[in-house]
Amino acid sequence: MYNFKYDIGTKVYFGKDQIEQLPASVKEYGKKVLLCYGGGSIKRNGIYDTITGLFKENGIEWVELSGIEPNPRHTTVNRGAAICRENDVDVVVAIGGGSTIDCAKAVAFAKFYDGDAWDIVTRKAKPTGFLPVIAVLTLSATGSEMDTFGVISNMDTNDKLGFGFPESRPVVAIMDPQYTFSVSKYQTASGSADIMSHTLETYFTPVKDAFLQDRFMEGILKTVIKYAPVALEEPENYEARANLMWASSWAINDMVGYGKKCPWTVHPMEHELSAYFDITHGVGLAILTPHWMEYVLSEDTVDKFVEYAVNVWNIPAGEDKFETAHKGIEATRRFFFDTLGIPSRLRDVGITEDKLEVMANKLNLTNVYVPLTSEDVLKIYKASF
Amino acid sequence: MYNFKYDIGTKVYFGKDQIEQLPASVKEYGKKVLLCYGGGSIKRNGIYDTITGLFKENGIEWVELSGIEPNPRHTTVNRGAAICRENDVDVVVAIGGGSTIDCAKAVAFAKFYDGDAWDIVTRKAKPTGFLPVIAVLTLSATGSEMDTFGVISNMDTNDKLGFGFPESRPVVAIMDPQYTFSVSKYQTASGSADIMSHTLETYFTPVKDAFLQDRFMEGILKTVIKYAPVALEEPENYEARANLMWASSWAINDMVGYGKKCPWTVHPMEHELSAYFDITHGVGLAILTPHWMEYVLSEDTVDKFVEYAVNVWNIPAGEDKFETAHKGIEATRRFFFDTLGIPSRLRDVGITEDKLEVMANKLNLTNVYVPLTSEDVLKIYKASF
Repeated sequence: MYNFKYDIGTKVYFGKDQIEQLPASVKEYGKKVLLCYGGGSIKRNGIYDTITGLFKENGIEWVELSGIEPNPRHTTVNRGAAICRENDVDVVVAIGGGSTIDCAKAVAFAKFYDGDAWDIVTRKAKPTGFLPVIAVLTLSATGSEMDTFGVISNMDTNDKLGFGFPESRPVVAIMDPQYTFSVSKYQTASGSADIMSHTLETYFTPVKDAFLQDRFMEGILKTVIKYAPVALEEPENYEARANLMWASSWAINDMVGYGKKCPWTVHPMEHELSAYFDITHGVGLAILTPHWMEYVLSEDTVDKFVEYAVNVWNIPAGEDKFETAHKGIEATRRFFFDTLGIPSRLRDVGITEDKLEVMANKLNLTNVYVPLTSEDVLKIYKASF
Repeated sequence: MYNFKYDIGTKVYFGKDQIEQLPASVKEYGKKVLLCYGGGSIKRNGIYDTITGLFKENGIEWVELSGIEPNPRHTTVNRGAAICRENDVDVVVAIGGGSTIDCAKAVAFAKFYDGDAWDIVTRKAKPTGFLPVIAVLTLSATGSEMDTFGVISNMDTNDKLGFGFPESRPVVAIMDPQYTFSVSKYQTASGSADIMSHTLETYFTPVKDAFLQDRFMEGILKTVIKYAPVALEEPENYEARANLMWASSWAINDMVGYGKKCPWTVHPMEHELSAYFDITHGVGLAILTPHWMEYVLSEDTVDKFVEYAVNVWNIPAGEDKFETAHKGIEATRRFFFDTLGIPSRLRDVGITEDKLEVMANKLNLTNVYVPLTSEDVLKIYKASF
């Protein structure tokens, strides 16, 4: 187990009607809000009216950044930063899922940078300040509400890149599972795949002695396996939505990675896909994951795959380790594509074969669980196509 | 799942040689330290010299409160508070296990109260201020390094009472598993029983839909079941000590109780024992737990006990639910008394039969998992005697 520093400073108000905590939380950090959101769904389901009503009642002024894309773009970040500068914004409130929160986190540092925010995402420039971000979560998926990361896309260069600064972790997250009742089946399924993928990226790492963390991760995976199908069938099942929501935050808020962190594999492979084709992140992850698993299964990794099959999928450990491992991978595949109903092939989500090589050539994954060259990535892309 | 607020603000430096983080951590919070510790063990194993050496190198002044008892007394808290007032102490550093950290937490508020600190423990007076507490952990057991609680004993009145204030949570915890290499077999065993008991107090509560939290708790229990025997056999096994240490913090830092918190049962029963007989807390818990389990097993609770037997002890779910439940309880008993070697009866640790009734009469446990009258408690004490 590596040394680590635990420091998860987000305050989370979790449960029914916790939005009531928003005005006091805003006032703790600032006076003038940038309210960030995506499309019109928060206007249709009443969340926008609730929040702006609370702002009015409590004398909180705000300006807005709306139309944040599912894969938020650097141009939108720049637009938000300009609004913050023009209006002396001192706290950013994001209402939405990972895309909106990621964009808000980028705006939070872009406000203090006169150039293109993309310079900071690409590490050409360093952030010099951060506005506090408050997240009001409406989708259980990325965990952005409680972590330090964000992902921004540049559609001019077909790049989708992540950033991560300790100061980017939201100071407050308001998590009301009822806010996810109206999430579509498609988004519920892909969000669930995203939660599982975050967990699997950390579960499959070379560190073998972080036993407690591995058990926590199995708990997160079992939670998604139990409740994602319930949420698909009964979108207003509070128990299911609450467990999925809490699982989404813990899959990636650093906790499960303490002592065993190592760079991820499937996420960078997926980021290339959605940078080129703007597909739903969780869907791309679900398609790639089982093929990646088969590709990296070897004498070196088989014991971990057996642990996964037995502890997560309750598959009896057979005499042949590889057979048990394959059964675990097959269970993953069946869950994503049969139970959650996610498309199973890249061609089904609009990706074209001619781009596979261009995307693969952008990647050379070293230091990961099992290192992968561009050639390896291309093989996984082709198997997934 | 109940609504809850997540707010675990302790910064933890976990791993080998993390004591190097102490001077900077102290300087973040103050200039003059009260250094709290128990007997002489930290002088024998070199930790005292390391820490005071770091203080000298970094120009940090300190005064000392030593001789903190295994069940820390209110008189000791008052002594510490007087030292703080006389010396303008502004940060408290506790080196030790739960007793020392609990005492430090009480000193931290007693400094601001002119009367007897016991008034605050008994809720006759409210705390008006808190010094920041930094914990340097040397024993994996109580989780005090990351939680808001403390327990103080009054030997004049044979009372042992808990307190809990959000401000009492240590601001920093330094957790080096190597510091527990020299912990005796007896303390390793009783500390492990304590971790399990904290987890079980929250695992067995009436809330049934906090699925993720229950899986986390099973992970903590499995961690202790795997590594406590290893630590007993190989006291310098880093993997075992590290997993036990991290498990100890998470068993009680609020996380597993979010959404399902309910007052505890076995701890108050044990506190009476150690208030009268000054026995080791974890040993008392281990003796009482299996008898408590048998006593509260019923048609209402059997499903949870089956879940416990199956998920924690890998006992196959049989057709007869009660038989499976009993097997889980028997596994708990065998683990505590055979594997960990903890004495199995109250009479073996110096408790006398004549006091059982007096102790039981102090308790009337309502709102707990299964409510217990004094009469019920007496029956459990007698069965455990």
